[in-house]
Amino acid sequence: MPVTEIPLDPRHLAERVGEWLRPDGPEGDVVVSCRVRLARNLAAHPFMARLGPEEAHVVGEVMREVLVDTCIDGETLWVDMASSSPVLRELLRERHLISRDMCPENQAPLPGRGLAFGRTETLSVMVNEEDHLRLQAMAAGFQPESAWEQVRDLDLHLEQCVEYACDDRLGYLTSCPTNVGTGLRASVMLHLPALGMVRRELEKVFNAAQRTGLAVRGMQGEGSRAVGDLYQISNQVTLGRSESQLLGELSGLVPEIIAFERQMRTLLLAEHRSGLSDRVHRSLGLLQSSRAMPTDGALAHLSNLRLGLHLGLIDAPSMGTLGELWIQVQKGHIHALCAQDGSEGLLDVSQRDKLRAGLLRSRLAQ
Amino acid sequence: MPVTEIPLDPRHLAERVGEWLRPDGPEGDVVVSCRVRLARNLAAHPFMARLGPEEAHVVGEVMREVLVDTCIDGETLWVDMASSSPVLRELLRERHLISRDMCPENQAPLPGRGLAFGRTETLSVMVNEEDHLRLQAMAAGFQPESAWEQVRDLDLHLEQCVEYACDDRLGYLTSCPTNVGTGLRASVMLHLPALGMVRRELEKVFNAAQRTGLAVRGMQGEGSRAVGDLYQISNQVTLGRSESQLLGELSGLVPEIIAFERQMRTLLLAEHRSGLSDRVHRSLGLLQSSRAMPTDGALAHLSNLRLGLHLGLIDAPSMGTLGELWIQVQKGHIHALCAQDGSEGLLDVSQRDKLRAGLLRSRLAQ
Repeated sequence: MPVTEIPLDPRHLAERVGEWLRPDGPEGDVVVSCRVRLARNLAAHPFMARLGPEEAHVVGEVMREVLVDTCIDGETLWVDMASSSPVLRELLRERHLISRDMCPENQAPLPGRGLAFGRTETLSVMVNEEDHLRLQAMAAGFQPESAWEQVRDLDLHLEQCVEYACDDRLGYLTSCPTNVGTGLRASVMLHLPALGMVRRELEKVFNAAQRTGLAVRGMQGEGSRAVGDLYQISNQVTLGRSESQLLGELSGLVPEIIAFERQMRTLLLAEHRSGLSDRVHRSLGLLQSSRAMPTDGALAHLSNLRLGLHLGLIDAPSMGTLGELWIQVQKGHIHALCAQDGSEGLLDVSQRDKLRAGLLRSRLAQ
Repeated sequence: MPVTEIPLDPRHLAERVGEWLRPDGPEGDVVVSCRVRLARNLAAHPFMARLGPEEAHVVGEVMREVLVDTCIDGETLWVDMASSSPVLRELLRERHLISRDMCPENQAPLPGRGLAFGRTETLSVMVNEEDHLRLQAMAAGFQPESAWEQVRDLDLHLEQCVEYACDDRLGYLTSCPTNVGTGLRASVMLHLPALGMVRRELEKVFNAAQRTGLAVRGMQGEGSRAVGDLYQISNQVTLGRSESQLLGELSGLVPEIIAFERQMRTLLLAEHRSGLSDRVHRSLGLLQSSRAMPTDGALAHLSNLRLGLHLGLIDAPSMGTLGELWIQVQKGHIHALCAQDGSEGLLDVSQRDKLRAGLLRSRLAQ
């Protein structure tokens, strides 16, 4: 049974992206990916709020052994947070493998915290984040059932290895009451550039989602418009409904949003083709020429390119390249891919902006 | 003696630019060109305010014959305004050969108005604009003496052919009292991108100019910052000083402005090299990729390229290409160079913006 102990080489990890960013997923013109995560806790240990450092370490060790034996994707990669570099932790966060809460910036990671994940990054388990275990499956495009089946299989397997904290009436017990019951949160990452251009239309989507107990939020940044036009829609309720009911609610609304976005794209193309073409080509020109590019700018221009590719306004770069760049323009990836070997800590913003511009120029060279 | 009667082919004219846009003029990194014009009137006819259509026609005919015989630059081109196309008139205005007042847009040109100019566009004479004659010489870079000598020679020649309205005490008489005396206005076209970035510094230049009886204004557009960072500095007084005194005032201040602009460029390069480089490369990328480009945007980006070339931040396109594009991105030139043959009147803004973007892409292709 293969066991891969880290140190994982950040540069090597940063060069590729997870399977969930494959460009050929179902409804891939609008849906980037979907994700299902399950919150679980061990019956044998106090929950996180009351877990001391030594016992946290014990939980981490127990789960590391179980998860490495589990052989996710044929080979489990394990990262101990406390002994990992800030760059590697940032990379994992940008790849959606760990949450921001797992390792807040400028804080030493709590003991016992770790991450197990497979080579394709489809399946992963955070240990000792808000709950003892956070199981996650991600899939490309709109296939929440596939993600659900994969995380369920992992869950069934782990349940044979450890005893979960469970209540006959409530279901799975969790640190935060909002997760009690199924412990399930399903989410879909949507690329909504056309709806994003018409604020009023996007608000309709937000309102429709809220009425059915779903939440929509921008993936990056705060305020009115999401950076890169990426939105996440997810269920807010976990209790009193079955897993398939929860997935069903999401699966009911998302196709409507997809149709709405496509309709707006068709409309834009019919009525503002030349303006849209100009916008897309300018973004390409800027990414091919700038000498300093902040993350938000890069994501906004990449969003325009993604839209342009789907609408046939440009034919290069490939959708695969765009998917990689979406992840690779973020700060941890820029550091891992572009910094001189041996440089300590994260680069400063202005250095990163220059390296990001260089990366984009070389990847998008004509 | 060669006589070229128009119709002049607008496309043919638009393809080249005047000698005064040659990039190798003295102090050409800051001074685009200089110009000296003389206002003159014929003693034998009433001034313009009292000149009836028939007599205006007579003045036009008299001057056409004299000017064609004068053989400017070896061959005088003559354009009768009333019988010329709106596109040709717009071209001539954009090339600084006629004023906006010569042929206001959407008005039929007054009878008797005409323009004589030479192949190199160094010398030209407007007939029946505000005065019967407006003689003009333009020269590349900072050589006002050269422009003065050329226009003076033309003036001396014409004075042998026609009798000027002149007063022993006042000097040359003109329609507007602000031109009485020498009838001379000298101006210098300056490219001040570095001073333009620091509003406060530019205001110092404006104030210094005003104190010495000179006026500074942006070449295009209204308000705070000149489009394309082009400024014109010219004398406001024409009376009570000799021609050489007037030129001397301009020649005294301009070198100070040149030194000031160069100093700001050096400072910018030392302290903001990467930001400046990013700005220049983004402009190049946008001009190479956009699908719709308004005139102001084009001029602003061309200004960045001109600065970038002089500072060694880019090495292409050539300064000669930039000089041509500066003129050719304007609406009359876009029409002449890009419109389908036989199209009537000027194209609409959105058509022009697309054609301008296409012209820029093809001229700046990597």
